[in-house]
Amino acid sequence: MPENPQNTRPKVKQGVISPGSLNPKLSAKRRVLPDVEELVKGILGGDRILLGRAITMVESQKYTHQRIAQEVIQKCLPHAGKSIRIGITGTPGVGKSTFIESFGQHLITEGCRLAVLAIDPSSQVSKGSILGDKTRMEQLSSNPSAFIRPSPAGDSLGGVARKTRESILLCEAAGYDTILVETVGVGQSETAVHSMVDFFLLLLLPGGGDELQGIKRGIVEMADLIAVNKADGDRLKLAKHAKRAYQNALHLFPPKESEWVPKVEICSAISSLGIPAIWQYINDYKSHTESNGFFKDNRIGQAKYWLYETINQRLQTSFFESEVIKKALPDAIKSVTEGQQTSFQIAEGLLNAFLGSNQK
Amino acid sequence: MPENPQNTRPKVKQGVISPGSLNPKLSAKRRVLPDVEELVKGILGGDRILLGRAITMVESQKYTHQRIAQEVIQKCLPHAGKSIRIGITGTPGVGKSTFIESFGQHLITEGCRLAVLAIDPSSQVSKGSILGDKTRMEQLSSNPSAFIRPSPAGDSLGGVARKTRESILLCEAAGYDTILVETVGVGQSETAVHSMVDFFLLLLLPGGGDELQGIKRGIVEMADLIAVNKADGDRLKLAKHAKRAYQNALHLFPPKESEWVPKVEICSAISSLGIPAIWQYINDYKSHTESNGFFKDNRIGQAKYWLYETINQRLQTSFFESEVIKKALPDAIKSVTEGQQTSFQIAEGLLNAFLGSNQK
Repeated sequence: MPENPQNTRPKVKQGVISPGSLNPKLSAKRRVLPDVEELVKGILGGDRILLGRAITMVESQKYTHQRIAQEVIQKCLPHAGKSIRIGITGTPGVGKSTFIESFGQHLITEGCRLAVLAIDPSSQVSKGSILGDKTRMEQLSSNPSAFIRPSPAGDSLGGVARKTRESILLCEAAGYDTILVETVGVGQSETAVHSMVDFFLLLLLPGGGDELQGIKRGIVEMADLIAVNKADGDRLKLAKHAKRAYQNALHLFPPKESEWVPKVEICSAISSLGIPAIWQYINDYKSHTESNGFFKDNRIGQAKYWLYETINQRLQTSFFESEVIKKALPDAIKSVTEGQQTSFQIAEGLLNAFLGSNQK
Repeated sequence: MPENPQNTRPKVKQGVISPGSLNPKLSAKRRVLPDVEELVKGILGGDRILLGRAITMVESQKYTHQRIAQEVIQKCLPHAGKSIRIGITGTPGVGKSTFIESFGQHLITEGCRLAVLAIDPSSQVSKGSILGDKTRMEQLSSNPSAFIRPSPAGDSLGGVARKTRESILLCEAAGYDTILVETVGVGQSETAVHSMVDFFLLLLLPGGGDELQGIKRGIVEMADLIAVNKADGDRLKLAKHAKRAYQNALHLFPPKESEWVPKVEICSAISSLGIPAIWQYINDYKSHTESNGFFKDNRIGQAKYWLYETINQRLQTSFFESEVIKKALPDAIKSVTEGQQTSFQIAEGLLNAFLGSNQK
């Protein structure tokens, strides 16, 4: 069972594994796969170690692990969904970790049970990972009311997003009522996160308001709340100025489908300024969208979106891993790179071969 | 035959069409589909009107049009590829149109035959389109050595990208030796453009260098040349300062696979400052990458990438448009939105139904 090396959860004994075994088949046989019933029982009982093991199954590339993961998710499904899911994004350096540390502490004093997950597809390139360094959230990660899981590494955005989404369901089944999904505000991952959360929080730095131009318009449009972080010391005045500038800028955007007017707040992880206000806004948002029906409608839309995503992924896997395509692909690639045939014609040919191969 | 309403090319007579016909079948029958041989002959002879018609076929959603388009592309393929393909990006307001107008004039005086295409998936939302307003490039669009085509509207990024890529091939077959592909620097479209061009040009505004933070790191990493635009009047000094700042910033990026060291240049559409230098850099780049083999390797890599993209698109179409999936999908969606089954399980079921339906 591959353990995520950046996993900060305690390691779980996994039966007798001899890493130096010369016979991989024998070694694989010796590994004890976790039992679905045991995992489900553990998760529903709030067992963090078994929750961690189940997420490791979710994150695994192996088919047997995936089968276990899907069974566990299916059994947890009736117990999932009863949380507020909050996406948090911001460019590197904006102070996401310290914000989550401070915000998380506040949530716990408010009686929340908090799970922090992450999406960072860039980690496959940089080998670094957000939430990967547990010292970055030292207090929070040692708190029994918080469960922190770093971003699964070495995968495509689609893969990482699916894993995070399934991990949310498991965390909810384990009784975590507040889910934070962290992402770096530099790529496409915001869209993925936005499609799995109820509330989207954008962290920005104090400044003259020009920074807004630096953030992709689409990300600003997603935000339900902009928090101007690091509003302490000399930067407090600047942050207040930025707040006004962002408030003005937000007026330029069209009204949101949720009928929620995005808020701007200044905050500081050091002084805790603004932290309770942000939590209050999130609660206001929840009441607002529950009463106008958007909260539920949005989740239904997200479920549909993820169904399509899952279908497309499964479809591709079944195609590219079929024997007939594996065999035909090298010639097809040769033909297209040598300019003999158009991509369209080759794709057509491969598709017919694939569908034909199922005619038996 | 649907004409792109934003198409600035001259309209072509398409046989007798009675728009008010009450019998759509009869009306469709009356339309004269363009002949493949005629289109190919026209394109290879440099006929701009027939090139425009062929691109309209490429952009059409209709199956019969697509079939014609693919035949035309296949026949043009041996005559395509002999151009330099240049991607141009920059945030709105950076002056892309005026830059292309000025840059394009220079290329034509240098003896180039220039095609300008665009990718703007955002136009499906805003209904606006880059290159859509022909007055924006008045001089260039009236020059017989230039062919300007606005971005196809109302489609997904994948769709727009495929159409632009296929249009490049047709323009090349028509004898255009310099292809500019314009895109807005705000979304994912840069990646699509980067995967179809040889050279990637990023336009920025004069400023203190802070703007670099505003552009996605990934886009800056793609750039072979950063041009600080609007370097005229009061902004000249600022632009020179920005040039130094960007040059310093570029040192922070890892070396490129092409072994080309990205350049920074200041330019002005008004004074033509920097325009010849930018064209010289592009020629230097071509010589450099042709001699080290990257030019060819990159195109091979791009062809592979587009093959996979095409396969995935065709695969999805064949799945979602099959009778069995059309029939099963509503229940599947109901089941997932009501939380009865996981997306994975439903996708699995649909896939089996789809593959099973081909067993006859």
